[in-house]
Amino acid sequence: MTGGDRLKARLPRGFVDRMPDEIRAVDAMLAKIRETYELYGFEPVETPLVEYTDALGKFLPDQDRPNEGVFSVQDDDEQWLSLRYDLTAPLARYVAENYEKLPKPYRSYRAGWVFRNEKPGPGRFRQFMQFDADTVGAPSVAADAEICMMAADTLENLGIARGDYVVKVNNRKVLDGVLEVIGLAGDDAAHRRLTALRAIDKLDRLGAEGVRYLLGDGRKDESGDFTPGAKLTPEAIDTVLAFVGAGAATTEATLDTLRRVVGSSARGSEGVEELAEIGRLVAAAGYDDGRVRIDPSVVRGLEYYTGPVYEAELTFEIVNDDGQTVRFGSVAGGGRYDGLVSRFIGEPVPATGFSIGVSRLTAALKSRGLIGGQTAPGPVVVLVMDRSETARYQAIVARLRAAGIRAELYLGGSGMKAQMKYADRRRAPCVVIQGSDERDRGVVQVKDLIEGKRLSGTITDNKEWRESRPAQFEVSEAPEALVPAILALLQGEKG
Amino acid sequence: MTGGDRLKARLPRGFVDRMPDEIRAVDAMLAKIRETYELYGFEPVETPLVEYTDALGKFLPDQDRPNEGVFSVQDDDEQWLSLRYDLTAPLARYVAENYEKLPKPYRSYRAGWVFRNEKPGPGRFRQFMQFDADTVGAPSVAADAEICMMAADTLENLGIARGDYVVKVNNRKVLDGVLEVIGLAGDDAAHRRLTALRAIDKLDRLGAEGVRYLLGDGRKDESGDFTPGAKLTPEAIDTVLAFVGAGAATTEATLDTLRRVVGSSARGSEGVEELAEIGRLVAAAGYDDGRVRIDPSVVRGLEYYTGPVYEAELTFEIVNDDGQTVRFGSVAGGGRYDGLVSRFIGEPVPATGFSIGVSRLTAALKSRGLIGGQTAPGPVVVLVMDRSETARYQAIVARLRAAGIRAELYLGGSGMKAQMKYADRRRAPCVVIQGSDERDRGVVQVKDLIEGKRLSGTITDNKEWRESRPAQFEVSEAPEALVPAILALLQGEKG
Repeated sequence: MTGGDRLKARLPRGFVDRMPDEIRAVDAMLAKIRETYELYGFEPVETPLVEYTDALGKFLPDQDRPNEGVFSVQDDDEQWLSLRYDLTAPLARYVAENYEKLPKPYRSYRAGWVFRNEKPGPGRFRQFMQFDADTVGAPSVAADAEICMMAADTLENLGIARGDYVVKVNNRKVLDGVLEVIGLAGDDAAHRRLTALRAIDKLDRLGAEGVRYLLGDGRKDESGDFTPGAKLTPEAIDTVLAFVGAGAATTEATLDTLRRVVGSSARGSEGVEELAEIGRLVAAAGYDDGRVRIDPSVVRGLEYYTGPVYEAELTFEIVNDDGQTVRFGSVAGGGRYDGLVSRFIGEPVPATGFSIGVSRLTAALKSRGLIGGQTAPGPVVVLVMDRSETARYQAIVARLRAAGIRAELYLGGSGMKAQMKYADRRRAPCVVIQGSDERDRGVVQVKDLIEGKRLSGTITDNKEWRESRPAQFEVSEAPEALVPAILALLQGEKG
Repeated sequence: MTGGDRLKARLPRGFVDRMPDEIRAVDAMLAKIRETYELYGFEPVETPLVEYTDALGKFLPDQDRPNEGVFSVQDDDEQWLSLRYDLTAPLARYVAENYEKLPKPYRSYRAGWVFRNEKPGPGRFRQFMQFDADTVGAPSVAADAEICMMAADTLENLGIARGDYVVKVNNRKVLDGVLEVIGLAGDDAAHRRLTALRAIDKLDRLGAEGVRYLLGDGRKDESGDFTPGAKLTPEAIDTVLAFVGAGAATTEATLDTLRRVVGSSARGSEGVEELAEIGRLVAAAGYDDGRVRIDPSVVRGLEYYTGPVYEAELTFEIVNDDGQTVRFGSVAGGGRYDGLVSRFIGEPVPATGFSIGVSRLTAALKSRGLIGGQTAPGPVVVLVMDRSETARYQAIVARLRAAGIRAELYLGGSGMKAQMKYADRRRAPCVVIQGSDERDRGVVQVKDLIEGKRLSGTITDNKEWRESRPAQFEVSEAPEALVPAILALLQGEKG
């Protein structure tokens, strides 16, 4: 192939490759999440990455055109298929399709890749992982309370200290009540309601003043882009901000403020009483110590939530890419979506669920030193001194592997120096060397690379180095001698 | 939503949902494969599910039109993206893109979903999992020999007994030599070579007679469909069949036949000598006891192989869907593909790799009772006797979970009978019941469902049953009494 024809090897925009340390760290994290979910009685399920487009619905936030944000392809029977953009819509399809077979209420969890056909940017990927837990068929807010407590237990199981996180709970019905009070009820106001909802969802990022603009005439951001507002009156905006700012030191104080804000709205009052019930359940289980808190500043941007919504926030501070000290913020969230399954089966199916953003959580745990600190030990490398003796070296490697020792034969075509460099890059704890002299005597040289590195800092004289041959020993190539010697070396390095 | 508008909940054709027992069984299997690969010094890597279409190349077997068999979508910058159809092409892209950074030779493994946009059929899915291992940058056939031995160790680590499997090794260069001998060398014969290759690859399924037709004028199958043949002469067909049938009791006998068949072809002779070297390496490591065998009946259908090819076959018999007793057959295979990476970087990059079909292997292990026999124990279910006491029940559940006991609160809206049925479907080891009488006395009733089921087979008299209250006991709701009692019950059921 000539240079001109040559293909360029490149990742598609917005996609990434994952390296060994990252894979191992995330796997360990997922295993701990799974452990907590299993403890709560949740069961795994896994749906395919592809669904019929109509089954997924159009629930992506911040997408104005239908199907924007989704990778779709037409099947040869003309039906449209899409890569899933979250794990909730596929679960709704799964539950509807298997409704009779499933125990109800049905608690399930699943981790998997989801896709967004969006413009990629820093920290914004087109393929990313979510880890969801959902309870379907439980109308009681006890199900929502349970998921909030499970979120708290999950974070603690991952090593996040109590006090370094909070699970905030709000209720869409309360928000509906507020919007009713300010005259945004009914189908006609649906679009303005959604605009208001998304404005409030930006509270964390823009603060009350930014949200005030978005609830009013609109907001111009730093780049000059203008986002149209919900066109509420100043009084209405005050009411909305009183609602989102209602979070107080005690649950009772928060609920009192909410009762005042929703006034006579029946739906709003229903929402407040649900929050009161969640508060009672959380308190009875002892999670009212700051782990789970009623906080109306959380609304969640998705349109399909119908009741309680919740968000797990990390409260510790980190230094962001711009050098500013900020709270880490949200790593997971969810809420009640009583309408998603019933789209398929025409009877009400209550459901509530929770989604962890795996990359965000990974970044959080890394920033606390809770994962990714250790790199896996490399293999013992058996060097190739004489290519015609490869079978002999291969047999040495086989002996080590048979004893459970991670080991490999150097398979490249280079000389001694390159082989030592290779062993170093592979983080090999030691190399095994057998020249013709050693072969004739039935022995090998074992070079301890980690001890050797340590010593090279202390011995400065070249001659002394050569004479003392530090961190190197000779041992019989017989398995009964070689295996214990290598195991002792590996043990010493661990200790 | 009215009935007419209602969406139908259905999986797309050729895709499946995975249930808890399946997920757990496959996860356990993948962990064991990973363990063996790590022992061999291989490192994990994970590429995205989406690649640029041109980077994947057109290497699907049995596809006549370009891009047939692949799910593709055009990006908004006009470039075509595809879902990967195997894990080899993405690895080639990854290695080329990160060539300078990687240690070489580079041993890597990865498991993941791949996609084929084909007509689905029984056992033919459009999303399935592969588990691959590859060594890139090692020109020596020691790398191929190593992967064959690793395949054997992997199967044994999964519980497949020695003698129940064989890893067969062949070499494309030998096949090239044979084709040269019968006059199918050169670019002009490329299409016929590929036809011949695919014919030989069907040996396992069609037998020598079926392959004879496909090498000759063509073959009509039972459904009446006609597959055009490679139009070889009868003599040429005899030569090809002598080649694929060259497998003998000893490696030396096999090699002798191959030397005769390839005659004066330089490429063929090179291939035979590579096989001889693999034979020596395998013997030196002790794998020549039937675990790894030179067998020219294996050719592998993919066009991109350039040297050794290998296949792991399970030799035990199973009864297939048609009631026939058949050998289980191939569960994994691979070979050397020296051209795939060099498409990107314009210098030769030798590579060899191996792919396990995860579903096939899962089916094999299930048929041997090696996975999937056990179902995970269900959670302890705390029943709801009085809805207004939910917080109290929730607190009991929280106590059990805090002690590491898998437990849940019944979250549905139904009465006692439905709750007991739910506990049964969830495979609950026991239920915890607290009526008003028990509440007043600060105790709970624990009903042992597994012991109860056992006893219900022995006690036939209803009155006796009620009076003896078998497999049920009362215990204080205090954690220091309740937790040990439940733990003892769970322990007893395990033992």
